[in-house]
Amino acid sequence: MNELVLIRHGQSTWNKDNRFTGWVDVGLSEQGLAEAEAAGKLLREDNFDFDVVYTSFLQRAIRTMWCILEEMNCMWLPVHRTWRLNERHYGALQGLNKAETVAEHGEEQVQIWRRSFDTPPPQMTPDDPGWAGHDRRYDLIPRDEIPCGEALKQTVERALPCWHEQIQPELAEGRRVLVVAHGNSMRALIKHLDGISDEDIVGLNLPTGVPIVYDLDGGRPVNRRLLGDPDAIADAMEAVKNQGSEENT
Amino acid sequence: MNELVLIRHGQSTWNKDNRFTGWVDVGLSEQGLAEAEAAGKLLREDNFDFDVVYTSFLQRAIRTMWCILEEMNCMWLPVHRTWRLNERHYGALQGLNKAETVAEHGEEQVQIWRRSFDTPPPQMTPDDPGWAGHDRRYDLIPRDEIPCGEALKQTVERALPCWHEQIQPELAEGRRVLVVAHGNSMRALIKHLDGISDEDIVGLNLPTGVPIVYDLDGGRPVNRRLLGDPDAIADAMEAVKNQGSEENT
Repeated sequence: MNELVLIRHGQSTWNKDNRFTGWVDVGLSEQGLAEAEAAGKLLREDNFDFDVVYTSFLQRAIRTMWCILEEMNCMWLPVHRTWRLNERHYGALQGLNKAETVAEHGEEQVQIWRRSFDTPPPQMTPDDPGWAGHDRRYDLIPRDEIPCGEALKQTVERALPCWHEQIQPELAEGRRVLVVAHGNSMRALIKHLDGISDEDIVGLNLPTGVPIVYDLDGGRPVNRRLLGDPDAIADAMEAVKNQGSEENT
Repeated sequence: MNELVLIRHGQSTWNKDNRFTGWVDVGLSEQGLAEAEAAGKLLREDNFDFDVVYTSFLQRAIRTMWCILEEMNCMWLPVHRTWRLNERHYGALQGLNKAETVAEHGEEQVQIWRRSFDTPPPQMTPDDPGWAGHDRRYDLIPRDEIPCGEALKQTVERALPCWHEQIQPELAEGRRVLVVAHGNSMRALIKHLDGISDEDIVGLNLPTGVPIVYDLDGGRPVNRRLLGDPDAIADAMEAVKNQGSEENT
C-alpha cells in the first residue's frame, strides 16, 4: 500500500519575528531545523519509505526536505521543485510585521486579509523590486500568472495543477510521495483531498514539522492522520496558534 | 555564453581512512564539507549562475552539491540524480584499506587495478549484501547492468549516456549546467570532451572541490580551466596525490 505524506516546513526566521512572509525566501530558524530533523527521525523510526519528493521553490521548504532526506538516509531520492507549492503570496503585506500592520490597518481589516477565503491582500506591483517576476527562478512562469498578492482561493487554483498533473499520477502508479511545503499550499491540497468547504478551510491549522499521513486505496487518499506522539502534536499546534502565524509560513 | 562546470565532491570519511570506496555510500569529512562550501563561495564570487544541476546517487556528491547551492543562494535549482555519475565501482575491493590490500596482493597488482584503463578489480558477487542490486535506490537499473566491479573503461561506458542524453542536450539549449560527481565519472566526461587517450586518462588527477570550468561555443565545450587561486589549486592537487586516492572517491 502506498502513502502520501505532507509536511509543513519548520519555523522560519520570520515566523519568529512575526512578519508576513509569503514568497520572501527566508531561512529556517534553529528551532525550524530541529523540527525538520525530528520529522525525519519520526518517519525513519516508523519505517516510512518514499519514491519521490515534491517541494516548493522556497528555501525554508527545501531545507526542511534536505533534513528529512538526510535523517531517512535517502538523499538520493528524486526531488521535484515547483512554484505551485510555494506559500500563499501575501502581496504588499510581505515583509511587514503583523502587529504593526494591525496598528496601521486595524484588527478587523487584517483579520479579513488573513482569514477570508477570497479577499486578496493589498497588491504588490510589478515595479516592486520584490516582485517575483524580477527573480530568475520564476523565469518559466508566464508573466501574467506571477502572483501579486493572493487570497487562499488563488493559492488553491495555482497549487492544484501540481496535484492533478504531477502528484496524483505518481500515486496512481503506486509510488510513495513526500510533499514538503507551506501552510497554505498544503491547505490547498487538503481542501481538495478532503472536500473541505471554503469557509472551513481557512480555520484548518497545520502544525509545522509534523508528518500528515494519507493512507491510500488504489492511489486515492482515504484517511488523514497526524504522525507522532499526541502530546508533541498538541504542543506543535499550540505553538503555531500562539505565533498568530497559522496561515502564513 | 553558457558554461559547464564540473566539481569533484569534497573529501569523504573514507578518503581520510584511505579505503577503497566506490559505490559505498559514505559521508563527507569535516574537511570535505569545508571544501564544498569553498567551492560554492568561489562560484558565487565569480558570478556563476546555473540553470540545472546533475549529480550521482551517492551522498558525498549530493551533500557537496547541497553546500554549493546553499552558498550560491540557488537551492531552488532543478537537480537530476543519476547512477551513471556514480564513482567507479571497485568490486570486491570496496571497503578494504589500501595499504592492507597492497600487503595482501602486492604493490604491482594493486597498481594495475588502480591504474589500468581496462583491467577490472576482483568482482563482487550478487550474493554479497553490499551488491547494489540489494539497494532499492538502484531498483530501476536492469539487473545485468548493475556493476560488480569496473575498470575505468566500464565507468566511461555507463557514464557517457548521461552526457549524450541529458547534459549535452541541456547545453545545446543554452542552459548552464553544474555537475557534481566523482573522480572517475568526471574522468569519463573529460576523456570524452577533450579526446584524451585510454593511456593518458588514468594519469589525469582532479583536485576535490575545485570547479572545473568548460567554456562553450554553440553548446560545445572548447576550453577547460580550473577556477580559483593557483596556490589553492596546487595545494588541492598535492593533497589528492598524498592521499593516494586520486582515482577513487
